[in-house]
Amino acid sequence: MNIVDELNKFRSIIDTELEKVIPNGDFMQKKIFEAMRYSIFAGGKRLRPILSLKSCEMISGSYQEAMKIALGIEMIHTYSLIHDDLPAMDNDDFRRGKPTNHRVFGEDIAILAGDGLLNLAYETMLEGFSLNKTNYDSHIQAIREVSRSAGVFGMIGGQTVDIQINDDSAEKEKLEFIHKNKTSSLIEASIVSGAIVAGASHEQLEHLKAYGQAIGMCFQIRDDILDKIGDEKILGKKIGSDETNHKLTYLSLYGMENSINEIHILNMKAIEALSIFNEEESIFFKELANYLAYRKC
Amino acid sequence: MNIVDELNKFRSIIDTELEKVIPNGDFMQKKIFEAMRYSIFAGGKRLRPILSLKSCEMISGSYQEAMKIALGIEMIHTYSLIHDDLPAMDNDDFRRGKPTNHRVFGEDIAILAGDGLLNLAYETMLEGFSLNKTNYDSHIQAIREVSRSAGVFGMIGGQTVDIQINDDSAEKEKLEFIHKNKTSSLIEASIVSGAIVAGASHEQLEHLKAYGQAIGMCFQIRDDILDKIGDEKILGKKIGSDETNHKLTYLSLYGMENSINEIHILNMKAIEALSIFNEEESIFFKELANYLAYRKC
Repeated sequence: MNIVDELNKFRSIIDTELEKVIPNGDFMQKKIFEAMRYSIFAGGKRLRPILSLKSCEMISGSYQEAMKIALGIEMIHTYSLIHDDLPAMDNDDFRRGKPTNHRVFGEDIAILAGDGLLNLAYETMLEGFSLNKTNYDSHIQAIREVSRSAGVFGMIGGQTVDIQINDDSAEKEKLEFIHKNKTSSLIEASIVSGAIVAGASHEQLEHLKAYGQAIGMCFQIRDDILDKIGDEKILGKKIGSDETNHKLTYLSLYGMENSINEIHILNMKAIEALSIFNEEESIFFKELANYLAYRKC
Repeated sequence: MNIVDELNKFRSIIDTELEKVIPNGDFMQKKIFEAMRYSIFAGGKRLRPILSLKSCEMISGSYQEAMKIALGIEMIHTYSLIHDDLPAMDNDDFRRGKPTNHRVFGEDIAILAGDGLLNLAYETMLEGFSLNKTNYDSHIQAIREVSRSAGVFGMIGGQTVDIQINDDSAEKEKLEFIHKNKTSSLIEASIVSGAIVAGASHEQLEHLKAYGQAIGMCFQIRDDILDKIGDEKILGKKIGSDETNHKLTYLSLYGMENSINEIHILNMKAIEALSIFNEEESIFFKELANYLAYRKC
């Protein structure tokens, strides 16, 4: 299996499905559709929905059952980027090489486009019930997993702590909280939700949770490293913004050598968590962990 | 039945339940809890959740089944107010006599508090499944009704059109779209969702939908009138803001006399829609329609 080919294949499947569920057409409120589509189709990696589809496939043999959940997860991720980029938050002008949503549509529409995507995420995930008539319990459990991870005890909680002015106290605890909640939480929920829909056992879920936590943390530290030494052309954005904004990062707190070591350790943990699955089942997730740990963008 | 006593009774029931579900306590992200609680407990009328509980009670005899849906609806309503008040939107400094969320907590936290409430609305509504184990279908249908009414084909769509600069074309259609989507949609979904959870028939739902549409429109026109001739002390906010902001309203388009007449007509429509219910069942909703049509705040 070539990991890049597999990621591209699933990315294209997800793009096709997103195209169907994000509204379009000449309605009076079409401006909001334009803004939502602009950010949804701005070249995202689709990492989170891919995790959801692939974990569903690993457990049940088919990824289709997790599709609505996966699409909802990508909308939640995208709304969070639109709101994070706003002038009142990180005030970013570019993302993935393109002007941010509010730079194109204005702050008011950008706020509403974020709201619209968050709400549409739930509309879409709730639509999944019509596909899973026999499987209500696991579908509800999966949506609730996503919902919790996106909320004030997950992503929104992490962002709240991240934007608070650094008070120089308990920085390590604060950084751990931010990484765990702002980034890892939704990544973990992505992989777990797909497995829940597929009917995974408690043991399987625990192992996938550990995998999700490890690659989530790994993903974040790699992000911080790329912001310091990445290639701007490949990244599609300026590097050094963490330093400019005095962001609390693993790198700023522990230095480059420790950060690179931590990535190795987390990558090993992720692969170890997959030990209960056989080689054939888990090959995608193993290769994905390696790919994310050493990615260039 | 005294309508004001009944409204106060249910308002207090809802406040007690909201107190339990909006997070509190000394967590690292407590700032977001403070901001969410500030707006949720800022003296709202709880009209929407009351509609949901009372329609559930009218159909099934008990309001408890609709509680989680009702709480979710109030959170959705509150998040929309926080975001509407932001500088990039209506730029309002006061609401219900108190400084708006962003004036107290800053724009960044206000955006996140809105996001947090929208997400928590879904977390809360999804919790309702644990209460309704035998009744999945109707509970899902009710959440989907709320979800649709809150989204880009409902409230967010209405707000999108409302903030767009007036292009002087097709004002009547535009106004109708805004009223229907921005205000009526969630009011209608409130009453319909409670009835769905209670197992209402198709005919009952159609009549309640007509009632909800009529009082929703009535509510909005009354709002516009109060913004022109209301008592600032009773309202808890400055009047005249629609005129200052060149808002497209029923009043600005059709004048005071037509607006007052329209309220009479809508009120009659609302009461007529209740004709399929007997007097005892529908007395609350009849009195509520009259109360809302001629309210002072």
